[in-house]
Amino acid sequence: MADRHLIAVEPATRPAMHDVMVAAVEQAGGTVVPIEQASALMFADPMAAGEFRTILAAGAGVEWIQLPYAGIETFAHNLDADHIWTCGKGVYAAPVAEWILTAILTSFRAIPRYVRSTSWQSQEGRDLRGAKLTILGAGGITDAFMELIAPFHCDVTVVRRSSTPYPGASRTMSTDNLHQAIAAADAVVVALALTEATTGIIDSAALAAMRPDAFLVNVGRGGHVVTDDLVTALGSGVIGGAVLDVTDPEPLPDGHPLWELDNCVITPHVGNTAEMGLPLIADRVRDNVTRWIAGDDLLGPVDVDLGY
Amino acid sequence: MADRHLIAVEPATRPAMHDVMVAAVEQAGGTVVPIEQASALMFADPMAAGEFRTILAAGAGVEWIQLPYAGIETFAHNLDADHIWTCGKGVYAAPVAEWILTAILTSFRAIPRYVRSTSWQSQEGRDLRGAKLTILGAGGITDAFMELIAPFHCDVTVVRRSSTPYPGASRTMSTDNLHQAIAAADAVVVALALTEATTGIIDSAALAAMRPDAFLVNVGRGGHVVTDDLVTALGSGVIGGAVLDVTDPEPLPDGHPLWELDNCVITPHVGNTAEMGLPLIADRVRDNVTRWIAGDDLLGPVDVDLGY
Repeated sequence: MADRHLIAVEPATRPAMHDVMVAAVEQAGGTVVPIEQASALMFADPMAAGEFRTILAAGAGVEWIQLPYAGIETFAHNLDADHIWTCGKGVYAAPVAEWILTAILTSFRAIPRYVRSTSWQSQEGRDLRGAKLTILGAGGITDAFMELIAPFHCDVTVVRRSSTPYPGASRTMSTDNLHQAIAAADAVVVALALTEATTGIIDSAALAAMRPDAFLVNVGRGGHVVTDDLVTALGSGVIGGAVLDVTDPEPLPDGHPLWELDNCVITPHVGNTAEMGLPLIADRVRDNVTRWIAGDDLLGPVDVDLGY
Repeated sequence: MADRHLIAVEPATRPAMHDVMVAAVEQAGGTVVPIEQASALMFADPMAAGEFRTILAAGAGVEWIQLPYAGIETFAHNLDADHIWTCGKGVYAAPVAEWILTAILTSFRAIPRYVRSTSWQSQEGRDLRGAKLTILGAGGITDAFMELIAPFHCDVTVVRRSSTPYPGASRTMSTDNLHQAIAAADAVVVALALTEATTGIIDSAALAAMRPDAFLVNVGRGGHVVTDDLVTALGSGVIGGAVLDVTDPEPLPDGHPLWELDNCVITPHVGNTAEMGLPLIADRVRDNVTRWIAGDDLLGPVDVDLGY
């Protein structure tokens, strides 16, 4: 068993992330070493999932792997029971929660219409105070979002795998009752992990279950929403509008019909930007390396069976 | 002295407001009577300030006047020491505070740029968490806004007439030190009453004192900002952008240079919309008529000397 102080940070293909992770390991009292000597691997480039297997293969002593993002679907096929896996789960929750609030307020207050206008418009707007929100997902993002909307006294339905009550929600429902859970909502927020069970969860049937003046907010992954169904729903008034921080395909190609819809706002995966995210993942690495050396439980554990 | 149960609701030129005010008076135990018999006047059309003097002249027994809006500048020349004056001060604070938060998040998250885009954009965005905000005004809107942003742990400077510490602000400064108070802010919010002292408070010198990446948010009155100075500042990068719910002139005429600026968003005085506002002013009328009949202090008193 390798000395727990010895930590690899690889690859170095994304220098800004590599550098903050190296600094974080050292702040935690670790020593950055080549993977051959390491007890743990801090994977330092979310875009280099293709290199993961090769890098890990050289780390015979690696027991723990820290992945850089909250969503790990590009790494999921590598998960095994021989290692301890952690990810950025919860790390990016604060800025993503802010983005969700931005998306909802932007929609309720008709900001897209006013941005495009070049003359004084008629009054339009809806209050968030007391609104009905349905949130799909009960992870760190939902936790952070619930904190932000506490002053608005919303009626919040949380939808999760089980129906175990989510603290602070007005009600908690299981995904089996999705259509019922979203039927009354002013806004439906998708903040799920992408798994086989959640892929395409927002399809034409789900969209039809929503109110015609409701907004869809997707901050999970593009694959949660059946894009063609959404295009149809937005174009024909099945729902009021959508704000998407993730798309399928992503990036959304030029000329895609979603770009043309006035009731659809697309932001380029900026729930947390690289700039916002680096200090946050650095904090997580520092915390987890400290825990690793001390033999404590790690933050953001991946459930290998569930795949997130 | 007229019986305090006898209340006039006039004019009837804005039926929706007249109706909710009549209902509110009756709910409070009052009786709606012609102004000749009334002890108080609920003024029921904010657009009919020109009729005010004529209507009041017929009300020899009127001791108290309830004005419909928070801002009373169109009525200000009628203020006198012979009557008790109250207004909608604080009533509309909750939706207006939501609008301010919308304006700031919209700006920080570059929503106008993304709304206009028809292709995948580069990442841009700033966190509200921990941001530096300067708020001009320490009234009901500021109170409501401070409640909404509590979860964001911002560094808040409140600017008011005196420098009496504003509860919950990181610091409170007087308008004498305006330029110093706005120098470090990510966003400057104008939430003042319009008086002689605050007219044109945001001029070229104030704009020059702001950071070049700062946003100006005006939810007070258009006259707080020198429009030509703002056009120049926005066009030449003196500040980062502006979101205006009020303008001078208002409504902003077609072809005005503000419409052409990509870093300026104009919303048509919808901090609270008529729809949001009616139940709120109805609540205030009901509360105040109840207090009037009981001989208690009224809510939203106007200071005749200060003019708001």
